[in-house]
Amino acid sequence: MANQVAIIMGSDSDWPVMEGCYKQLKEFGINALVEVLSAHRTPELLADFVRSADQRGVRVFIAAAGMAAALPGSVAALTHLPVIGVPLSSGDLKGLDSLLSIVQMPPGVPVATVAIGAAGAKNAALLAVQILALSDPKLTEALRKFKVDQATAVERKNKDLKERIVG
Amino acid sequence: MANQVAIIMGSDSDWPVMEGCYKQLKEFGINALVEVLSAHRTPELLADFVRSADQRGVRVFIAAAGMAAALPGSVAALTHLPVIGVPLSSGDLKGLDSLLSIVQMPPGVPVATVAIGAAGAKNAALLAVQILALSDPKLTEALRKFKVDQATAVERKNKDLKERIVG
Amino acid sequence: MANQVAIIMGSDSDWPVMEGCYKQLKEFGINALVEVLSAHRTPELLADFVRSADQRGVRVFIAAAGMAAALPGSVAALTHLPVIGVPLSSGDLKGLDSLLSIVQMPPGVPVATVAIGAAGAKNAALLAVQILALSDPKLTEALRKFKVDQATAVERKNKDLKERIVG
Amino acid sequence: MANQVAIIMGSDSDWPVMEGCYKQLKEFGINALVEVLSAHRTPELLADFVRSADQRGVRVFIAAAGMAAALPGSVAALTHLPVIGVPLSSGDLKGLDSLLSIVQMPPGVPVATVAIGAAGAKNAALLAVQILALSDPKLTEALRKFKVDQATAVERKNKDLKERIVG
Amino acid sequence: MANQVAIIMGSDSDWPVMEGCYKQLKEFGINALVEVLSAHRTPELLADFVRSADQRGVRVFIAAAGMAAALPGSVAALTHLPVIGVPLSSGDLKGLDSLLSIVQMPPGVPVATVAIGAAGAKNAALLAVQILALSDPKLTEALRKFKVDQATAVERKNKDLKERIVG
Amino acid sequence: MANQVAIIMGSDSDWPVMEGCYKQLKEFGINALVEVLSAHRTPELLADFVRSADQRGVRVFIAAAGMAAALPGSVAALTHLPVIGVPLSSGDLKGLDSLLSIVQMPPGVPVATVAIGAAGAKNAALLAVQILALSDPKLTEALRKFKVDQATAVERKNKDLKERIVG
Amino acid sequence: MANQVAIIMGSDSDWPVMEGCYKQLKEFGINALVEVLSAHRTPELLADFVRSADQRGVRVFIAAAGMAAALPGSVAALTHLPVIGVPLSSGDLKGLDSLLSIVQMPPGVPVATVAIGAAGAKNAALLAVQILALSDPKLTEALRKFKVDQATAVERKNKDLKERIVG
Amino acid sequence: MANQVAIIMGSDSDWPVMEGCYKQLKEFGINALVEVLSAHRTPELLADFVRSADQRGVRVFIAAAGMAAALPGSVAALTHLPVIGVPLSSGDLKGLDSLLSIVQMPPGVPVATVAIGAAGAKNAALLAVQILALSDPKLTEALRKFKVDQATAVERKNKDLKERIVG
Repeated sequence: MANQVAIIMGSDSDWPVMEGCYKQLKEFGINALVEVLSAHRTPELLADFVRSADQRGVRVFIAAAGMAAALPGSVAALTHLPVIGVPLSSGDLKGLDSLLSIVQMPPGVPVATVAIGAAGAKNAALLAVQILALSDPKLTEALRKFKVDQATAVERKNKDLKERIVG
Repeated sequence: MANQVAIIMGSDSDWPVMEGCYKQLKEFGINALVEVLSAHRTPELLADFVRSADQRGVRVFIAAAGMAAALPGSVAALTHLPVIGVPLSSGDLKGLDSLLSIVQMPPGVPVATVAIGAAGAKNAALLAVQILALSDPKLTEALRKFKVDQATAVERKNKDLKERIVG
Repeated sequence: MANQVAIIMGSDSDWPVMEGCYKQLKEFGINALVEVLSAHRTPELLADFVRSADQRGVRVFIAAAGMAAALPGSVAALTHLPVIGVPLSSGDLKGLDSLLSIVQMPPGVPVATVAIGAAGAKNAALLAVQILALSDPKLTEALRKFKVDQATAVERKNKDLKERIVG
Repeated sequence: MANQVAIIMGSDSDWPVMEGCYKQLKEFGINALVEVLSAHRTPELLADFVRSADQRGVRVFIAAAGMAAALPGSVAALTHLPVIGVPLSSGDLKGLDSLLSIVQMPPGVPVATVAIGAAGAKNAALLAVQILALSDPKLTEALRKFKVDQATAVERKNKDLKERIVG
Repeated sequence: MANQVAIIMGSDSDWPVMEGCYKQLKEFGINALVEVLSAHRTPELLADFVRSADQRGVRVFIAAAGMAAALPGSVAALTHLPVIGVPLSSGDLKGLDSLLSIVQMPPGVPVATVAIGAAGAKNAALLAVQILALSDPKLTEALRKFKVDQATAVERKNKDLKERIVG
Repeated sequence: MANQVAIIMGSDSDWPVMEGCYKQLKEFGINALVEVLSAHRTPELLADFVRSADQRGVRVFIAAAGMAAALPGSVAALTHLPVIGVPLSSGDLKGLDSLLSIVQMPPGVPVATVAIGAAGAKNAALLAVQILALSDPKLTEALRKFKVDQATAVERKNKDLKERIVG
Repeated sequence: MANQVAIIMGSDSDWPVMEGCYKQLKEFGINALVEVLSAHRTPELLADFVRSADQRGVRVFIAAAGMAAALPGSVAALTHLPVIGVPLSSGDLKGLDSLLSIVQMPPGVPVATVAIGAAGAKNAALLAVQILALSDPKLTEALRKFKVDQATAVERKNKDLKERIVG
Repeated sequence: MANQVAIIMGSDSDWPVMEGCYKQLKEFGINALVEVLSAHRTPELLADFVRSADQRGVRVFIAAAGMAAALPGSVAALTHLPVIGVPLSSGDLKGLDSLLSIVQMPPGVPVATVAIGAAGAKNAALLAVQILALSDPKLTEALRKFKVDQATAVERKNKDLKERIVG
């Protein structure tokens, strides 16, 4: 199931956040391509990668960037594949700039935007899995299990907290 | 290809905007289920619909809501299928409230958020098509054509504007 | 007077803030139920708890959550009892997201929203006490005393500061 | 059941919005006191009214104001009864100013804040009814019916919209 | 010239910031009254102080508060003397809430608002001096000197920086 | 009492709003100088006017501007007299830009900022009157009467509204 | 002096605003190339135009776009020439989205951003003229005259307004 | 090529950020004049410097300031040369105030605004170089090389990250 997802970041300094995305995909058995490519600094390389990714098996793009985050939209401009955008918080505006730069795409070129930062990085992976699961019953099964495990974890924390309070 | 997409709105007053989503899907030959269901006013009906939608062939949800827009997240809580959220502008905060209510989902339950209002309604349809196209070569072909047509439309407008200026 | 209030949090990581709510209730002799339940991760458990809470004596809900904070609205959707919402600051938007997600409820399903974070956690408790006091003269008396004590504390701080300045 | 609720507005120009609150209370058989009183222009009159309202049977205050909306907090400062605050949109900041002025109360003096404008006006009434219903089984029954009717209205609109689309 | 200015704070925790205001007044030979009084926790004491301050020689009020900062407006409601409001940054919204709560006063009751935090605390003092200087030629002279000194300080820093760069 | 106040606007298009300021001053018997002078388009003229205004009897400046509203701060930079700043709403950001450009002055150069638009225009006049009243007992008397009249007007509106509701 | 400036818009619906830019350039004798080209819908055409513009004599780009306004940054990514970005107000966020998408460029790829909408459209033209004037003494002369005329226009409006008030 | 650029800061505390601008210019062989001059504290010195800078060879101004950042606009008011504005983050509003104070210039007086803080400081230098390069082929060559080097750096980081992940 390798290489069905490509994670593109505008800078390698985004890795500490996006590693959470990469690892979440791994937990579903998906090995993502990871690329540092910038819409503003390496536009040609980005175009080359996006256009050829199809042939390398990529079916979903995850693009993460901060500030005037053009990367997800630039990827979406170049492909007919679904593109998930992760706004990162860098600089003084704390990700409000990147969120608006990613989510407010004009009609015709969608980007599936998730939350700012670490929550979004993880959810981008899950969204990619949900998309791939549409044609992969094993992934659907894994997602069902993920949801159950997630609920169980909340239940356990609920129990732990109550004991802590009573104790 | 009917009924692979379900469009859920929190209120029938959202239809004038979401009709753009419905029509865009139609242009790709996709007949969407349309439901008015509220996370806050009909939570049981919503849960019933989401849980049974799978069996009715729904593969992607599009959920649109304004203000404290819990609908997309509520749908995502109940399904392992991809959920696209459309923030609508209603009330004084002009969609900033619904955007943040939809996009800032906590880790574990993603919503693929698009732009506020009409642009987002159309892009939600295109995103759904992109997702379905992963297992439907005809839709891929249609998307490729859509992108070309879209570019051609810009070119034509470019030509028209230049003539208007010179003229 | 036990169990007239239920405090529900989206995550056990909210406890350090919501403990202030729990303790404030304790000072009024009210022992709150405390639950970690998520609108997005455990929707069924949440619905079960809210629907049965009535019979367990709960008369007021306090629901706290961060980011796209659907929890208070989800509780309000399931009960005719008053629901107090506490927006928590988690992530980069510093609670602006959770505030708008909680306060901007559509007509028909109110959530009584208080301030972001620790101030709101304490005020949620006081608001619950004010509501319960309507049918409990002892709580009314305690609230009157609380207001006097609070004023006295300001007076004392005023005196202390003046001495510090003069000194 | 008359006079258990007092609606206070900072200006009579707030009436077109707050009439929705008044009428919603009426539908539950509650006749509210209506007062135009300003925290900034008639502070003494406001204090007189709030302090004496208790004896006139008022059990819940609803206070609505725009801009630097001090009214709800001023009422809360003077009473131990629950105070519901309705932020109104007046002026260029579209209610963001009044929302923050009302919801961000410091610890010790809660205001139960609802949405900006008409949605909040209606929800303030419902919240007051929920509070009063804690000691009035008939109101509880009415609230249960309200919730059912509200759900039915959504269902009917759902049906209507589907017919409109198919038709 | 003592006691022509009263500095009122909502909490003694505001003193570290407002001490800058107090000291700036001292540098102009003005000894300010300092009071911790809360619009929400001690409304009567506040009213007593403001109403009697006139007779104690107070001619300008400086009121500082955070969050839903009603204090400056409450003072302005009770006096015909000029009131300067200092928004303080407390809590997650970083003073945006207190700024809007103070500056957006409705017509009829002005508050002279300055910047959030330490800059505003200092400028509140200077504004009070400018107001008092209208009937005190010595203060006018002191203000002229302050402006010259301030410019000289910038010049000196300019020189120092240049030397540092060249050096 | 003529010419103790100068109203400076960045553009003559600001007059419809600032006329409210001018008229409010008139009601207190103060005839203001009115100037259209721009910090950005006529900096020398502005400096000439501000520097000479002192000798023409001006004791308080009111400066109004929209967008990147440098005018009030530019006036404050050139005088030791109190400067009142009125943020105007022009352009898409609805006065948030002008508010922040005026109120967030750095330490050393205060601007007494009032609300955005018409409310602020009127309050700027009242603030100027409050300042001038410190050395003019007749103005103090007029301010006292203004406050009483204002309260009476609220009372009358209160009575009218109640009759309308009952009627 | 023709064709030294290229105006690129993301959509022909931007022309009513950008015509102000075009006309302002004309007043300085500069005939701009006008292009409708989209970063998201026609990325290849955009790249072709930007890369060849150099040879056609273009020395400054002006790029205008709304929402997630990637256009100016995309142009800047492809050229070493100065790029001026004009944020346009389209959609519910009123240009805040396009402003942040344009101005918050990451280090290495500057965009010279001007105000949202019509003011920015005109200023983009003037900024382009200022840049071209560095190697064109006639443009410098024209800019000097523009500044004088602009000041004269303010003076005339000042005089007119005074007459209107007195009259 | 010395002294073609002047960097003006409102305070010497801005130097740690603006040093990045200075050094970036140095890398292109441009030695900038550095001045600490305040629009609000030293308006005359600022005017003197700006008016005489032309004769000292300055062709582009870079002006940086925080809070109510009038400096760039004040420089632009006094010169026909291009002015680049760098919003700095100081105080609680994190540069949103300075950004709006700089970018929202009224029509007639443009400021070329870059990103808040360090990214903007560096980009201001690059923008100045792009402008000067229009009449300096060597700078054009250096910019071309800069772009290539920048792309190469991204490529190298891409390679490094991949190795780190695999490794």
